[in-house]
Amino acid sequence: MNLLKNGERIDDLQIKNLKIIQNPSWFCFGIDAVLLSDFAYIRRKEKAVDLGTGTGIIPLLTYAKYNPIEVAGVEIQEEVADMARRSVALNSLEDKIKIYTMDIKNCFEYIGINCYDVVISNPPYKKISTGLINPKDKKAISRHEILISLDELIYSASRLLKVKGRFYMIHRPERLNEIILCLNKNKLVPKRLRFIHPYVSKSPRMVLIEASKSGGDFLKIEDPLYVYNDDGSYTDEILKIYGRC
Amino acid sequence: MNLLKNGERIDDLQIKNLKIIQNPSWFCFGIDAVLLSDFAYIRRKEKAVDLGTGTGIIPLLTYAKYNPIEVAGVEIQEEVADMARRSVALNSLEDKIKIYTMDIKNCFEYIGINCYDVVISNPPYKKISTGLINPKDKKAISRHEILISLDELIYSASRLLKVKGRFYMIHRPERLNEIILCLNKNKLVPKRLRFIHPYVSKSPRMVLIEASKSGGDFLKIEDPLYVYNDDGSYTDEILKIYGRC
Repeated sequence: MNLLKNGERIDDLQIKNLKIIQNPSWFCFGIDAVLLSDFAYIRRKEKAVDLGTGTGIIPLLTYAKYNPIEVAGVEIQEEVADMARRSVALNSLEDKIKIYTMDIKNCFEYIGINCYDVVISNPPYKKISTGLINPKDKKAISRHEILISLDELIYSASRLLKVKGRFYMIHRPERLNEIILCLNKNKLVPKRLRFIHPYVSKSPRMVLIEASKSGGDFLKIEDPLYVYNDDGSYTDEILKIYGRC
Repeated sequence: MNLLKNGERIDDLQIKNLKIIQNPSWFCFGIDAVLLSDFAYIRRKEKAVDLGTGTGIIPLLTYAKYNPIEVAGVEIQEEVADMARRSVALNSLEDKIKIYTMDIKNCFEYIGINCYDVVISNPPYKKISTGLINPKDKKAISRHEILISLDELIYSASRLLKVKGRFYMIHRPERLNEIILCLNKNKLVPKRLRFIHPYVSKSPRMVLIEASKSGGDFLKIEDPLYVYNDDGSYTDEILKIYGRC
């Protein structure tokens, strides 16, 4: 089996010998996927699905971390899903990680309604602007809501989840009002927020969110997560999340 | 005029020679009122009202800071409103600060619908618990939603505000989901949030909120506000807000 296609490379994930295939001209996973995989929690007897899985980074990292029954990944772009599937094969995890080439908007009709314990997503952060976006550009698709809106994503997450199932997402703080409204509209109640600040004293640039399908009103805002020390080096917590501390 | 009643004392607000009458057995203003008065902004040509004004601390501080046309205070407890009125007289600010003995829930019927530029409130933070609360206890009324719920408060704020008017509130982060839902339900869109952390790396204990009556979806999460340095002294920003730096 020829695992690598033109322009692709294999990177070591530095956890349990896992490797991932990436194509730098499409996109490579970033710190968001790593932080989200750490913030999410999947028990060993649970089934999870990652919506908009891209390279499959979140199924790989969460599988390595939590060893659950199954982590699925849904990806609409066939070339990207194929690359993720080859990463799964490279790690011999075909029994544990399934990659589905599907549209998030209706995937629950095929992979199951009310049957996942956990849904995870690192979605595009930006609304479609009227600027110069090529709607087939893979980087643009990962950054802008070209193929799916926030509301459509959260609707699908809610359909996939069991009652009391958990939804984990990372997003931009400036969209928090919309996020909270969309979650509640779809019976998902925010339970935990963690803001990610580049430095102490700087406003947050990302927010990690846990919501529960049905649940009380109490919302825990967690300790802030700082990425850099004043001298520009990574904080101990970030090094720990990356497993290098 | 006998300004002080039994159990009361006069405190110096350390700003523009203002003084305030307080009764320590009822309640004294706290850091929340000071931080909220600093976070709120009133232009000189604007009219503001503080809902649940208690001692009148917020009208006094915001008047001193922003010098607007008028700051009103609404207070349901006659004894407390009377004390606030005597503080206003003590500072000879009767032309600028009006204290109304009214129920927040219907005050807009008397003081005006759609006619305030700014509404401010430091409301009770806690839902009514089933514990041992004396419903006439002034401290309990200031801390628990005995006389007004969050939803009723926000409804009144919205009725009082002009289109594009601004609502400023301080509250507990764990109620943020409810707060955001209530605001949106009442046509108030959150525009700025600032979390107040006791220390760097500790989760926030309070949140400052600015919402606008009609407005776009962009929400600014501001730089965190830290109250104490690691050694337990106040941070420079807190000293600056208190005018001691």
